[in-house]
Amino acid sequence: MPRYRLTVEYDGSAYNGFQVQAGQPTVQGAIERAITAFSGQTVRIAAAGRTDTGVHATGQVVSFDLDKAWPAATVMNALNAHLVEEAVAVLDASEVDAAFHARFSATGRAYLYRVLNRAGRPALDLGRVWHVKGALDVEAMRAAAAHLVGQHDFTTFRDVNCQSASPVKTLDVADVARSGHEVRLVFEARSFLHRQVRSMTGSLVQVGLGRWSPDDLKAALDARDRSACGPVAPSDGLYLTGVSY
Amino acid sequence: MPRYRLTVEYDGSAYNGFQVQAGQPTVQGAIERAITAFSGQTVRIAAAGRTDTGVHATGQVVSFDLDKAWPAATVMNALNAHLVEEAVAVLDASEVDAAFHARFSATGRAYLYRVLNRAGRPALDLGRVWHVKGALDVEAMRAAAAHLVGQHDFTTFRDVNCQSASPVKTLDVADVARSGHEVRLVFEARSFLHRQVRSMTGSLVQVGLGRWSPDDLKAALDARDRSACGPVAPSDGLYLTGVSY
Repeated sequence: MPRYRLTVEYDGSAYNGFQVQAGQPTVQGAIERAITAFSGQTVRIAAAGRTDTGVHATGQVVSFDLDKAWPAATVMNALNAHLVEEAVAVLDASEVDAAFHARFSATGRAYLYRVLNRAGRPALDLGRVWHVKGALDVEAMRAAAAHLVGQHDFTTFRDVNCQSASPVKTLDVADVARSGHEVRLVFEARSFLHRQVRSMTGSLVQVGLGRWSPDDLKAALDARDRSACGPVAPSDGLYLTGVSY
Repeated sequence: MPRYRLTVEYDGSAYNGFQVQAGQPTVQGAIERAITAFSGQTVRIAAAGRTDTGVHATGQVVSFDLDKAWPAATVMNALNAHLVEEAVAVLDASEVDAAFHARFSATGRAYLYRVLNRAGRPALDLGRVWHVKGALDVEAMRAAAAHLVGQHDFTTFRDVNCQSASPVKTLDVADVARSGHEVRLVFEARSFLHRQVRSMTGSLVQVGLGRWSPDDLKAALDARDRSACGPVAPSDGLYLTGVSY
């Protein structure tokens, strides 16, 4: 039974998150329906990241089995044809080893958070960026982000509904850079706690606005207390950009 | 009577072009309604470029008069508040000299055309890029674009409904560059003929796909014949990015 791996892009604004829920539009539901429409099979797909409502992806990875060995390019083209009414696109498809699992084989996840940092509201990127009017001090944000890198107890930056067994994670990359009117935050880790990226981003924006110092952010991390977290950033600006295996 | 200048961004997908038409959603209509809602005045705005249906802007410039001298920041914030249901945003506002006219004072217009050049269809940028699956040869496109720079009779790249008195225009910039999966074309001129950018882009994509040589594009230009133009590029990928005065 051949196993396939897909790289998937989606606009999360149109969906109640990735994970399938009865009666709700979800990314997983859209992909599984397209697989059924193409192959006639009912499948359950595995995914590297179960993104929340409104969160986007440019590099989500999913895996699933089909009864018949179709060429990978056929799978990709057929799925894209069946996804044409959805805000979901298959960017790449390949046949993979039966040991491959999109979620459990993943060794790293990369997220991008886009902040639109200008006075005027977004028109073209509405729902795709977080609009922050006040000028952000990117150097201060970068200094604060450096405190997050490494192995820490991230309880402060963990949603109360997080199902992870441990709050200890290792953050490999926490980078902040300006590109014109946009401030872009990049985070990489083996895995993340629930809403960790949005929680860290919200607190880093407090630093950027001058309301917190970089040391205040370190103190918030060290507190290991959810109530020490700044306002959580909205889903609009968050993108799952890639998964490594 | 104070005159104001605005820099405006919009997602053209939602509008039947810039220019106001009875019973149709237009960008001009949205802005004029917001001005009336804010000031109580009925105004007619002037704009640097009357973009077609589906064409976007990140740097459209408009001008209009108000009876009362409001601070420019108040005008901007009030208009953005009234535009919140629209895919239009005011990025900048300033009070300008009574001699300033957004259209007639303009000395240059800049357009960007975004081609998404990958196998997978767009999900996040649907309606905001032209999806071309075949790999584009950017070097060949750049060589062809060089033939368009300078003063020429652009009849080949002019829509049959163009109202311009003369088909002779001077193209200052015609640049083609790849950025990841995107091929970006930049054009600058004092002014353009109707659908000139989309006509030139469509023909340059023929070159990129290897169907035309750069010399074929030069021959099409020299023919001064609309029937020599390649398929016109769709509105989705086109952005008015800036106006100089």
